[in-house]
Amino acid sequence: MAEDNFTVTPWEVKGKVDYDKLIVQFGTQKITDELRKSIESAINDKLHVMLRRNVFFSHRDLDLVLNDYKSGKGFFLYTGRAPSLGMHIGHMIPFLFTAWLQREFGVNVYIEITDDEKFMRNQDYTLEQTRQWAYDNILDIIAAGFDPDKTFIFQDTEYIKNMYTLAIKVAKKLTFSEVRATFGLDVSSNIGIIFYPALQIVPTMFEKKRCLIPAGIDQDPYWRLQRDIAESLGYYKAAQIHSKFLPPLTGPEGKMSSSNPESAIYLVDDPRTVERKIMKYAFSGGQPTIELQRKLGANIDIDVPFQWLYYFFEEDDERIKKIEEDYRTGKMLTGEIKQILAEKLNQFLEKHRERREKAKEMVKDFKYEGKLARSMWEKIHE
Amino acid sequence: MAEDNFTVTPWEVKGKVDYDKLIVQFGTQKITDELRKSIESAINDKLHVMLRRNVFFSHRDLDLVLNDYKSGKGFFLYTGRAPSLGMHIGHMIPFLFTAWLQREFGVNVYIEITDDEKFMRNQDYTLEQTRQWAYDNILDIIAAGFDPDKTFIFQDTEYIKNMYTLAIKVAKKLTFSEVRATFGLDVSSNIGIIFYPALQIVPTMFEKKRCLIPAGIDQDPYWRLQRDIAESLGYYKAAQIHSKFLPPLTGPEGKMSSSNPESAIYLVDDPRTVERKIMKYAFSGGQPTIELQRKLGANIDIDVPFQWLYYFFEEDDERIKKIEEDYRTGKMLTGEIKQILAEKLNQFLEKHRERREKAKEMVKDFKYEGKLARSMWEKIHE
Repeated sequence: MAEDNFTVTPWEVKGKVDYDKLIVQFGTQKITDELRKSIESAINDKLHVMLRRNVFFSHRDLDLVLNDYKSGKGFFLYTGRAPSLGMHIGHMIPFLFTAWLQREFGVNVYIEITDDEKFMRNQDYTLEQTRQWAYDNILDIIAAGFDPDKTFIFQDTEYIKNMYTLAIKVAKKLTFSEVRATFGLDVSSNIGIIFYPALQIVPTMFEKKRCLIPAGIDQDPYWRLQRDIAESLGYYKAAQIHSKFLPPLTGPEGKMSSSNPESAIYLVDDPRTVERKIMKYAFSGGQPTIELQRKLGANIDIDVPFQWLYYFFEEDDERIKKIEEDYRTGKMLTGEIKQILAEKLNQFLEKHRERREKAKEMVKDFKYEGKLARSMWEKIHE
Repeated sequence: MAEDNFTVTPWEVKGKVDYDKLIVQFGTQKITDELRKSIESAINDKLHVMLRRNVFFSHRDLDLVLNDYKSGKGFFLYTGRAPSLGMHIGHMIPFLFTAWLQREFGVNVYIEITDDEKFMRNQDYTLEQTRQWAYDNILDIIAAGFDPDKTFIFQDTEYIKNMYTLAIKVAKKLTFSEVRATFGLDVSSNIGIIFYPALQIVPTMFEKKRCLIPAGIDQDPYWRLQRDIAESLGYYKAAQIHSKFLPPLTGPEGKMSSSNPESAIYLVDDPRTVERKIMKYAFSGGQPTIELQRKLGANIDIDVPFQWLYYFFEEDDERIKKIEEDYRTGKMLTGEIKQILAEKLNQFLEKHRERREKAKEMVKDFKYEGKLARSMWEKIHE
């Protein structure tokens, strides 16, 4: 078998990912048309754009989750974030999708903010920094539209007491050898970051129901460890629904990264910055001249503005179809599709900033005072 | 240099320990007559029998602790226990000595009960077991005579929230390589027990004063890790005062061990059991016949009953001198010295059981409601 010219691990995505191959490599399941219909019938609503367009394309046990939902047993959602200075739009995908799942299924969502992990991963970061970022990121997360009475957002350093008993039971099942490769550790890793995988697994056991984790497919290896041990502790294997990667602005390979500011649109970017970045950096599948574009049309498979519209920003199926046709046939020029994307992005960001502003008054509900939060602070997970 | 025929590590003590050599090996300081006088003048009282008789024989920075005490800066004491089913008299040595130090210096004592460690170290133990043992051991510890308003006894699984922030700062400074050898870990160790050293170090930083740890010298390697990193976190290197090992009943080599019930006297042993064990198993330096004993006398260097009396149970300096002379010269027989030890031991155990009974009503003070305990539950260690 020829070697693949792409790499997907939890800490690196390189090359142009062949998602069908990745499903085989990782041993996950494809989201089939049948499964999509099954979701549609369960929610009795139109599917999310990212499901319709196969951005969420792979899963583990999503069929079992749907069965549990239909039989009345229910399930819950779990996602999280290692806090960072400024989130980009790629970071919002799992949160927006999770919030949609919550609205459609009416289930609880747990969101772990790993201020401890971030602090321990980087020699240069102080805990004060990671906590400040945690607060900022929580505002962006709330802005994704979660239900304050059915969502619990917690920081590891605050909620540790309630998790520690279960964490040591999980930890006792995992050896250094087992976590080493998955988490990119070696003998020079610090002993805190070695323990951390246990704290990442604990929330999958917050309820005695199946836990569904929406995330980029690069996160899948983490949950394999959970699936190895969950049943021996009396819990379910974590189910997952995996997304593709929103390509970086600068090209169709890899994954948007905060370490390369040109490749990303940040949630704080103002309209002029967004427009400038897209016009200047967005990798185009269009032809080098207007004449050639009119004649040959664009290659939409590698065109980042088109892909961003398709994945995320143009939810109207008719409109995206029209854009695709016009652009592929040369009726639409590169400058025009970039303009459409810039407008869509700026609309999204403007709404996001409004919601983020309102979120400031809701932090206490999500963390401490909402219905779910209150019950979680009373619970010691054993 | 000839190889030593003894081994001392935190998890194994083998052979007849040469304590002078051990001081050189470990790089600790001898407790000199001068230092003993300095303690005596600081407390203005007679020294504890275990200090007078060189059972506590080695230290790190005890001189600095005394300076801090004399200058009014003060210090605090820290000890702990991995809970087990039934403590033996050897286990009481650090607690009895620590309680004496507390009475003489009037300082705070922190006692960590590592229910998490014990659970994670042994595949067979449940957390319920280690917590039951924790409760039982706490009664024995309280019976050593601590001040309920100046002593905080805490279980890791309960107090974790207050310790976790500082624990991850400590953990970030320690790599797997660094803790591996000291804690007897390898790549097949579970990730919880790998993190645990951080939780053992945190209490050395409970106050911004020097921390003094009374313990068997086999525990010294643990605290070297603390001494490597403490100052970089703004705390003092932990000072220590080290004891020799009470020899097992069955011979002068090694260390009393719970895994060999004949070698130990348990705190729950009744008077007849104590007498029977001593008569049957206590290793004697006396001669094989009465005639020979009268003629040659005993070798007290290898005689366990004499050593137990000397180390621990006969506090009267005149009486122990008389016993030593009589026994060494053959005036006293093996059966007689064993009888003296049995009586002394049973007196100690009877008093211990009374104090243990009273301790049941004091657990809540030491853990939650005493003056120090209350202030500790309000503190998040950063």
